[in-house]
Amino acid sequence: MSTTISPLAPTDVPEMPAIAGVKLATAAAGIRYKGRTDVLLAVMDKGTTVAGVFTKSKCPSAPVEWCRAKLGRGGSKGGFARALVVNSGNANAFTGKTGKQSTALTAQTAAKAVGCTTGDVFLASTGVIGEPLDATKFDGVLTTLTEAATPDHWMDAARAIMTTDTFPKVATATVKLGKAKVTINGMAKGAGMIAPDMATMLSFVFTDAPLSSSVLQALLKSGVEDTFNAVTIDSDTSTSDTLLAFATGAAAADGAPKISRASDPRLKAFAKAFRDVLADLAEQVARDGEGARKLVEVIVEGATTKASARRIAMSIANSPLVKTAIAGEDANWGRVVMAVGKAGEPANRDKLSISFNGIRVAKSGARDPSYNEAEVSEVMKNPKIQIKVTLGLGKGRDRVLTCDLTKEYVAINGDYRS
Amino acid sequence: MSTTISPLAPTDVPEMPAIAGVKLATAAAGIRYKGRTDVLLAVMDKGTTVAGVFTKSKCPSAPVEWCRAKLGRGGSKGGFARALVVNSGNANAFTGKTGKQSTALTAQTAAKAVGCTTGDVFLASTGVIGEPLDATKFDGVLTTLTEAATPDHWMDAARAIMTTDTFPKVATATVKLGKAKVTINGMAKGAGMIAPDMATMLSFVFTDAPLSSSVLQALLKSGVEDTFNAVTIDSDTSTSDTLLAFATGAAAADGAPKISRASDPRLKAFAKAFRDVLADLAEQVARDGEGARKLVEVIVEGATTKASARRIAMSIANSPLVKTAIAGEDANWGRVVMAVGKAGEPANRDKLSISFNGIRVAKSGARDPSYNEAEVSEVMKNPKIQIKVTLGLGKGRDRVLTCDLTKEYVAINGDYRS
Repeated sequence: MSTTISPLAPTDVPEMPAIAGVKLATAAAGIRYKGRTDVLLAVMDKGTTVAGVFTKSKCPSAPVEWCRAKLGRGGSKGGFARALVVNSGNANAFTGKTGKQSTALTAQTAAKAVGCTTGDVFLASTGVIGEPLDATKFDGVLTTLTEAATPDHWMDAARAIMTTDTFPKVATATVKLGKAKVTINGMAKGAGMIAPDMATMLSFVFTDAPLSSSVLQALLKSGVEDTFNAVTIDSDTSTSDTLLAFATGAAAADGAPKISRASDPRLKAFAKAFRDVLADLAEQVARDGEGARKLVEVIVEGATTKASARRIAMSIANSPLVKTAIAGEDANWGRVVMAVGKAGEPANRDKLSISFNGIRVAKSGARDPSYNEAEVSEVMKNPKIQIKVTLGLGKGRDRVLTCDLTKEYVAINGDYRS
Repeated sequence: MSTTISPLAPTDVPEMPAIAGVKLATAAAGIRYKGRTDVLLAVMDKGTTVAGVFTKSKCPSAPVEWCRAKLGRGGSKGGFARALVVNSGNANAFTGKTGKQSTALTAQTAAKAVGCTTGDVFLASTGVIGEPLDATKFDGVLTTLTEAATPDHWMDAARAIMTTDTFPKVATATVKLGKAKVTINGMAKGAGMIAPDMATMLSFVFTDAPLSSSVLQALLKSGVEDTFNAVTIDSDTSTSDTLLAFATGAAAADGAPKISRASDPRLKAFAKAFRDVLADLAEQVARDGEGARKLVEVIVEGATTKASARRIAMSIANSPLVKTAIAGEDANWGRVVMAVGKAGEPANRDKLSISFNGIRVAKSGARDPSYNEAEVSEVMKNPKIQIKVTLGLGKGRDRVLTCDLTKEYVAINGDYRS
């Protein structure tokens, strides 16, 4: 477990405002960790809509299956939520029948405490895979938490869902919807097993805007594409990736219009703010990659399509050789060429250009004639490294965030369970 | 650069016999390394046939393009070879026009020294990408080497082509072809940037069997599939992967029949021996993965097809989280589940079983009821770890070799250029 905070942690942590209709509380249920909180309960007012995107893993966790089923129930009539229960320390993944029973029991306990049906309870778990999750541990805890829940505690909430994260990840935005001011608060946890193929491990976004669940779902779907789905720490997609969004609709009392179509023009500013919150959280996930010492932004331009640019950018961002070179502050652009070459996408070696933090190191398939090792070495010391690859084939462009691969990553993951 | 030999190095190094028609010599041309050999010249008798398979990288090195063009020239009429020049320390990849000129100059120098045409000269380079290769360094050297070449020096040859390899890799087999005894000698180098998608970085196989180049090509094509193409160190496919095979035909003088069709039944024993040499070399590449302390064999059974089993096995073998867990001697089978799940192939969580070195840890989608942490921890100390995944869906089976991911890998690759 990491004890020191990532040097890439944001220095500017926002004040998290309350969201009307959302109350939070955390507790230490002793699921795995000692001396820290590991359960988060969010209680939402009646009428809160919900949407979610999940891991594409073929072996999803029990809570992912639970949430999918509850959202499916909503369908076009809209999904509603009253409670969110998140635990860290145990992912309740690959736990067979026990896992399913565990989600059902947790939901029953929460529904009883909050006073709703189990269909209104959403669940997420993160931590070790394959260990049975003892849901009886939530028994008294969830009643206590329901009573203790208040509109603040956002930082505590973000802290309770951490595993190998070294800092809590929150983001907030305030934006006009119609003439009313609405708020979006988000939190995330990340660290390892991060190559989201739908959403990241766990992230929860709340707003008081009155949005139907289909609108929320549309915002999530388009929002994750260039945020969470464009982040990779280690190419390993989790069994637990869950991004849930909740809209309490409380701002309707202040005159915010009810939005039930994603194409509603009044949604524009909100959609941008929503996406910015996701992008902020996603970048924080990259900044807290296990063992990370450098934030790496990979930009691929001039590809035949955006999808092709994405695949090449991911090939670079997932290359252990590129990532270890950056850890060593080595502008080893030859490895970037390798990663472009192995992506299987259209690329013409003799049109390739590569730059590190704005300094072009390779041009037209060979080292840039003006290459200056000392100058490049200097910029590699920067905590943020931008690798830009220009393919010269078309207009496809994409951007992916990752981090370097350090000895600390190996140390963290060589003894995570012990 | 590693200075200690991999603990996984074979303890039994074979005596390499001479191959009639092949002479070898090595030299220190000072291309990059100090105090070691870095050039290999193999001189083959007239009539030697040649075949090759190469990296599927879209950004191949100049020598790969050179060899492809020379083999293409041969076509169905058969490719012939008189000389092979290999250098380590510089890959001559992404070197633009200079790279092309460099291969042409090297071939001219070799052709003049050996007394053949440039079309009979095959080239391979391994080392740093993007640095121009000064081919004038071969000038006097290749003449000296041609004079010095003798039928022995196989271990020296294998040593001259090493980069971050910690031991030279050779394999040999003797087999009957018709009534004559023929010999197959092979060598390889590997270590990092190893996820062959056609062949490994550099490997060369020689035989005195009288085989047409089309037969050699067929043997290579079928031979690499479950040998070199089933090895991965770090998922990074090199720009320089080259596997060349040479058949001098000298054994015809001892009565070995000339084989010109791959379907010739007399080829059967030879084909098996040939494949065994490739498999032996490929395993040595896995045993010498950068920083490797464990050899890892991933077996996937019960997949819908062999191709599906291969993709799942590769997903496991390339997972940084699986590899770091093995480095930490942790039977973290939850990460194996994760890797199965992310492969995108048909898998049913509730039918999955997983075992480590024969001890079943997971069964029917949950921890095996008889799971015993102490027993499993004990087998994880073994230098060879077998991960077997049973999907329970069909008859598809495959096997992939890899190694663990250690801090040494990061250390080696964080300062490879410096």
